[in-house]
Amino acid sequence: MPSTPPAQPGQSFAEIDTPALLLDLDAFERNLVAMAAFSEAHGIRLRPHAKTHKSPEIALRQIAHGAVGQCCQKVSEAEILVAGGVGDVLVTNEIASPAKLDRLAILARSAKIGLCVDHADGVREAAAAAARHDVVLDVMVEIDVGGRRCGVAPGEGAVRLAEAIARSNTLRFAGLQAYHGAAQHMRSIDERSEAIERAGLAARNTAERLAQAGLECPVISGAGTGTYELEAQSGIWNELQCGSYIFMDADYARNRQADGSPFRSFEHALFILAGVMSKPVPDRAIVDAGHKTASVDSGMPVPFQREGAIYTKPSDEHGVLTGDPVALPHRGDRVLLIPGHCDPTVNLHDWYVCVRGLHGPDAHVEAVWPVAARGALT
Amino acid sequence: MPSTPPAQPGQSFAEIDTPALLLDLDAFERNLVAMAAFSEAHGIRLRPHAKTHKSPEIALRQIAHGAVGQCCQKVSEAEILVAGGVGDVLVTNEIASPAKLDRLAILARSAKIGLCVDHADGVREAAAAAARHDVVLDVMVEIDVGGRRCGVAPGEGAVRLAEAIARSNTLRFAGLQAYHGAAQHMRSIDERSEAIERAGLAARNTAERLAQAGLECPVISGAGTGTYELEAQSGIWNELQCGSYIFMDADYARNRQADGSPFRSFEHALFILAGVMSKPVPDRAIVDAGHKTASVDSGMPVPFQREGAIYTKPSDEHGVLTGDPVALPHRGDRVLLIPGHCDPTVNLHDWYVCVRGLHGPDAHVEAVWPVAARGALT
Repeated sequence: MPSTPPAQPGQSFAEIDTPALLLDLDAFERNLVAMAAFSEAHGIRLRPHAKTHKSPEIALRQIAHGAVGQCCQKVSEAEILVAGGVGDVLVTNEIASPAKLDRLAILARSAKIGLCVDHADGVREAAAAAARHDVVLDVMVEIDVGGRRCGVAPGEGAVRLAEAIARSNTLRFAGLQAYHGAAQHMRSIDERSEAIERAGLAARNTAERLAQAGLECPVISGAGTGTYELEAQSGIWNELQCGSYIFMDADYARNRQADGSPFRSFEHALFILAGVMSKPVPDRAIVDAGHKTASVDSGMPVPFQREGAIYTKPSDEHGVLTGDPVALPHRGDRVLLIPGHCDPTVNLHDWYVCVRGLHGPDAHVEAVWPVAARGALT
Repeated sequence: MPSTPPAQPGQSFAEIDTPALLLDLDAFERNLVAMAAFSEAHGIRLRPHAKTHKSPEIALRQIAHGAVGQCCQKVSEAEILVAGGVGDVLVTNEIASPAKLDRLAILARSAKIGLCVDHADGVREAAAAAARHDVVLDVMVEIDVGGRRCGVAPGEGAVRLAEAIARSNTLRFAGLQAYHGAAQHMRSIDERSEAIERAGLAARNTAERLAQAGLECPVISGAGTGTYELEAQSGIWNELQCGSYIFMDADYARNRQADGSPFRSFEHALFILAGVMSKPVPDRAIVDAGHKTASVDSGMPVPFQREGAIYTKPSDEHGVLTGDPVALPHRGDRVLLIPGHCDPTVNLHDWYVCVRGLHGPDAHVEAVWPVAARGALT
């Protein structure tokens, strides 16, 4: 297995092998501080999503900045986070597998562990797994607030699931999972506002029905980097699950604020460093970063500070830079690309090459962090 | 790092954890035999592309069936293939990095190693690296036969590069790399035929000019799974570089033959086994396989033998099955998905779960192979 990182701490920027996943430590740290300040100013808990970074190194820094714990999507991610020192992990996902639930229950011996349900069988199976391993699991009821993915309909169905959870000796009803994934990448603030307003009404209505049924709903959790200000201002949610804010990918940069200006709360902190392996004609430079280096599910990577150059036509291990010949690099040059979508791009790499002073003359590698939960699919 | 495979040899199909990358050994072996028979019948060398499988286990099986060696795209892939016992590797790509060329030259101490060039600096740098490590490298001149990616223009430019290679004491001119990547997924046989006919004229013209310059061109290499029959019938190419034929993904299955019928030379042998984690409404089942499990750059994964069900709206760790409610699985069920594009999908996984009798009642795990060169990007 390829275990050699593309760089070592202390090396200069020029010594980094390509392609590499680069973390601009300065921008990353400013993003950490900015979201921590927002969360504190709004009196709202922050539980960042580890599916973005897959790294206990980053999780522990978020927690040091005030985050209450981490979210993740898979049991194997939770295992790696707990092994890396994270003490509070919520799997923001349904688990329909007794074998996986066993692993999650074992994890609950050494950390506070939660999961989501949207079906009575999920409650029953989680309770049985917790009983087998003599632990208590936190269980959130996921309601579909508009994303049309997982989640029970808001209202009575959610109350019945919460009641089933509350009746179990081995489960604790931890609240509502109310995440609107589809709203995150709506481009205009009007679209996002409308989606989150509807989601908030659904969550509040469900919480009121829970209260009528005598069930306390300690947490309403949700929000992503595209909408977190709306959830925070709603007075309904009390926990944010943003993940991408630490990196800011090209797709989130396409979101627009009320005045039509770009969404600029956070800085681009994650890059692909690519090398130019060929420049057969003046208007085409070929880089060593294709589908196996940068995901394209949310659009192409974007060349950084190279106006007029366009990344296009990726194949497995090639990308084509085209556009204005003056903007194109030469054979042997290196270029920075902003990933189209950070989460699946990170998942293609084994290492973060953490660079200090990335855009200055003394850029150097300060650390190399493993993407510890890369490929943690189960 | 996640090192636990989703299954163990001897387990039944039902015991495989999800999501998992499944190799149908029976179909895979038939594909191996079919391409070996084609290659033998046409008297043409087969050098399959390891960027598809990234596995010495598979490479050695291809070689046992008559393949002359392997292609790959990256130096780190070549390192893993050689470490796994492959004795002849061609990097079908340009390398514009002295550090990478050093690694490749070191590899040439224990295996026959080739690379491509499309620039005089590439010749000079490869010669210097080979000299530093006291080895001889095979060098192919890549010509652009229509793919508009890397490659020098056919004709005089290629001859000049070949002459520079031939003048070097540490390089051997190994032939022409003439691969038309863009032709592989042209849907109609007419489009593919026209593209490969033009590519063949360019390759033949260049070979004739090489002969006029007194240079023997031992190999003209190229072709992929979408066009290999055309190159084999041309009388111009004498080496095929097909990779995907062993797996057959959903995108190649969309190619059409002369009579308009699907392209059916090979069987689907690679699958994603996904679990249904949620079925909130009758026409929507959510599986645990999203962008981090199956690439979507060449279209969505396709549910296998589940007519009426459509995989759609993938997010990082979720996929939505929708369509005819009768065709949809239930919570806790497992479904087979045909990957949209096999190469980048394989690169998301650490393990092949190799199943014998996949579609029968006695389906069981015969072996688990590491995707040894997964993430080999440099």
